[in-house]
Amino acid sequence: MAAKLKSFWKNNFMHLLEIAKRRKTVRHFKSKEVSLEDMLYCIEVAKEAPSGMNSQPWRFVIITDDDIKKNIRKICEKREKEFHEKLKGKLKEWLKEKHITWEKNFIEEAPILLLIFSSKEFPYFVQSTWLAIGYLLLALEEKGLATVTYTPPNPEEVRKYIGAPDEYKLEAILPIGYSADEKEKEERKNLEEITYLNEWKQYFKYKSHILSG
Amino acid sequence: MAAKLKSFWKNNFMHLLEIAKRRKTVRHFKSKEVSLEDMLYCIEVAKEAPSGMNSQPWRFVIITDDDIKKNIRKICEKREKEFHEKLKGKLKEWLKEKHITWEKNFIEEAPILLLIFSSKEFPYFVQSTWLAIGYLLLALEEKGLATVTYTPPNPEEVRKYIGAPDEYKLEAILPIGYSADEKEKEERKNLEEITYLNEWKQYFKYKSHILSG
Repeated sequence: MAAKLKSFWKNNFMHLLEIAKRRKTVRHFKSKEVSLEDMLYCIEVAKEAPSGMNSQPWRFVIITDDDIKKNIRKICEKREKEFHEKLKGKLKEWLKEKHITWEKNFIEEAPILLLIFSSKEFPYFVQSTWLAIGYLLLALEEKGLATVTYTPPNPEEVRKYIGAPDEYKLEAILPIGYSADEKEKEERKNLEEITYLNEWKQYFKYKSHILSG
Repeated sequence: MAAKLKSFWKNNFMHLLEIAKRRKTVRHFKSKEVSLEDMLYCIEVAKEAPSGMNSQPWRFVIITDDDIKKNIRKICEKREKEFHEKLKGKLKEWLKEKHITWEKNFIEEAPILLLIFSSKEFPYFVQSTWLAIGYLLLALEEKGLATVTYTPPNPEEVRKYIGAPDEYKLEAILPIGYSADEKEKEERKNLEEITYLNEWKQYFKYKSHILSG
């Protein structure tokens, strides 16, 4: 009985570090439907984030309609093609290595697209909205859902297509579904590479015994 | 036994929505020390966030030294004073209503200051870093710690003082400690005010039975 209960709780409640570590970017999705309840749960989590002046500048547009998805894909891919033709340097190499091309199948493939907008009328609208996206990504993972924070090269065209007012900026398009992506999570730097103590100088490198990772 | 185990799990593992709802901005802190282990746990969570090109542009500087805290407070308050004298409009009213002045006691009061920097060399460095801050805020709450995402008016002066290279931008200063702030959490909008379905038009207003909130 105790073991059963333990396994129930373990499956239903995780430490944040487990959720965060498990969460990876996904670009291929199963056709399995995503419940609107799960989607709304994740937005419920996101909207608890703090924001400049508590302005809550974020807006969420859930897209379930196949024709709309198809049109958004078309709008994005048109510019992606131009963008990829002009690419240079580090970004070009990185995208090639990751096999990321101008084709954005995931826009149509994912059962749900979530368009995230921010209102330009408030201080720190970009920062606040991305902070909320951080909340959202963890909530998706908690629900077993996957995504990629796709930032199209032409957010304005997508905004106009969806009919969002001028004051809003499209921050990201999140294709959401159950993962069909075999790719491993990209590696993260070690804590000691990104954390300093009291001055801009590596410190924790020599203190790895206190690290929790 | 089962009840005891249940209570253990319930105290140690929460659904993300509970953590997110409970989390509020805090500007007053107890003197109670914050363990470095807890601090590093939260950064461990944050560094799992995705970022443009997986560049992980974030850097974290933990400040525990009292003199450094005092100096950072001085640097910030000098410009805060000028900033508050010039204030106008909505922001001025909002700050007055919230009793937020140029004085930033919390910079000295909090047992730990966490300075968060982003590297300007990568695409979407601001967005990526704030997404990671979203992760971090939830981790702090999970550990029972509180903060405010303070954005000083003169991030460059603080950057220079701490000796961070030119390529880095100070995104926020987080005073971290145990809450001594009685203020209630600021209210959030309802889900139906910020969420649309397939077009920019209120929809969920009439569908409140499916909302999880």
